[in-house]
Amino acid sequence: VAVRFECTILGVNSAYPVHGRHPSCQVINYNNELIMIDCGESAQIHLSNLSIKRSRINHILISHLHGDHCFGLPGLLTSFSLQGRSKKLTIHGPLNIKKYLETVLEISGSYLTYELDILEYDTSICHDFSIHKNLEVQTFPLDHRMPTMGFRLQEKQSEMNIDPSKIKEYDLSIEEIKAVKRGEDIRGLSNSKFVLPMTKNRSYAYCSDTAYDESIINYIKEVDLLYHEATYLGELEQLAIERKHTTLAQAIQIAKLSSAGKLLVGHYSSRYTDLSEFVKRGKEKLGDKFLLGQEGETYAI
Amino acid sequence: VAVRFECTILGVNSAYPVHGRHPSCQVINYNNELIMIDCGESAQIHLSNLSIKRSRINHILISHLHGDHCFGLPGLLTSFSLQGRSKKLTIHGPLNIKKYLETVLEISGSYLTYELDILEYDTSICHDFSIHKNLEVQTFPLDHRMPTMGFRLQEKQSEMNIDPSKIKEYDLSIEEIKAVKRGEDIRGLSNSKFVLPMTKNRSYAYCSDTAYDESIINYIKEVDLLYHEATYLGELEQLAIERKHTTLAQAIQIAKLSSAGKLLVGHYSSRYTDLSEFVKRGKEKLGDKFLLGQEGETYAI
Repeated sequence: VAVRFECTILGVNSAYPVHGRHPSCQVINYNNELIMIDCGESAQIHLSNLSIKRSRINHILISHLHGDHCFGLPGLLTSFSLQGRSKKLTIHGPLNIKKYLETVLEISGSYLTYELDILEYDTSICHDFSIHKNLEVQTFPLDHRMPTMGFRLQEKQSEMNIDPSKIKEYDLSIEEIKAVKRGEDIRGLSNSKFVLPMTKNRSYAYCSDTAYDESIINYIKEVDLLYHEATYLGELEQLAIERKHTTLAQAIQIAKLSSAGKLLVGHYSSRYTDLSEFVKRGKEKLGDKFLLGQEGETYAI
Repeated sequence: VAVRFECTILGVNSAYPVHGRHPSCQVINYNNELIMIDCGESAQIHLSNLSIKRSRINHILISHLHGDHCFGLPGLLTSFSLQGRSKKLTIHGPLNIKKYLETVLEISGSYLTYELDILEYDTSICHDFSIHKNLEVQTFPLDHRMPTMGFRLQEKQSEMNIDPSKIKEYDLSIEEIKAVKRGEDIRGLSNSKFVLPMTKNRSYAYCSDTAYDESIINYIKEVDLLYHEATYLGELEQLAIERKHTTLAQAIQIAKLSSAGKLLVGHYSSRYTDLSEFVKRGKEKLGDKFLLGQEGETYAI
């Protein structure tokens, strides 16, 4: 049985809160450990509203420093302290995020009860790091109006997963269990008799904010779930080019070129009160592979 | 008829958002011009939810720089630009507010479409300034864990208010109208025949956050409406002393000593899920002069 790997959307609007939508924020659940991606204003309120256990967040990934992707951080970080957090928290973000947070925390007289590790990355190149023994993050450059990076979350090949019922049935010794986990045959029987079927290594990519840019395809190839911004409908392609954002049709094109399993869109412009046209056009092109990102919804990866 | 002068509460919790309550924020309406006092996270969302016309806000007063009183500012300031504001905005706050806002706006690549005037005040002394031709602000020191100031909003004596029906009835000339407004008699008739009854000059005071401190009484004497924090019930007086906050009983005592018309309380500790004990005790001591501050409610001044 595969471990839990899913994405919950907390904020899906661009620029500012309106129409009941809020600035960008997502929470990835990997085996009940949580990773937050971007942290728009009021992210901490939605964590509470959705009963997401904030104490399980150990890593926060920030794509860039436009306010709608990071203005929720100071409130979240200080609330952690007021709620007695003692576990270390690691924030991964672009250059300058350290100065931003340290200045705000200092001027607001905030005292943190936990270790805060702020790691800065040059967004013009790729980086790899591990955030869970079975989950790696790969960053890659996005083409936006300020230094911005995308994230690929890639499940690692785990060791052979022994079937608990076989341990009982054959009364396996510790040594035999270790041998099975290494992939060896035991008692003259094939290894496959004792293990659960291997699950495919799953992956998720987050691309917000960015102009249409085929150079990212290499980094997001064949992800199971691709989140790509779709700020505008095609009628506003010129505006998308000027503001370095993407239209829905362009996001669909990126999903096709990268052979993504499913496409999840978001970062809608505030000019769209109603999103039914996004659904209609998305389903027309991708059918069930198209998912309209909505706040409070959880998407399996 | 007196001009509109009222206080709407947008956020009334201390520290962090919980129990459906949010960090400190109020909007004062004086003759349909709006003054915001403190700006906790998500203030801009509540402006929208309550359909308050944010374009009418020309002044924001910030009592101190703890996060629950100012973390909503960056989002509000950048949203003003995204919504095309061109009118000047003036922020009055303690020392360091300029560094806070300028650092955040610069790092987040925010471009403002309007003039932003940030005025810093030494909170250890009093200051007077005008924010409307008929409304003055007096700041005074509060005793908290960081430099903090309270605000008294004082209506000025306005000119004689001519009765429009008399202009018609007597077909008054421009010169005669001016004379009446100067308080002169005309056509051998008493000035009082042409003017509406003078209204008392009204006043409002905002005291959050502060320890129990009788030295503020001089500054808030006889205000019509006194907002005073009441973070805890009396059982936690020792904690109030340590954290430089006030209990409900202490807030009531300040209201009595300053002969306030009414007392409005708020800044409730997150430990109180339910506020019925605040109401019970407040009404017991002050009857109808006690008002439990609640989000979305508007209080006449």
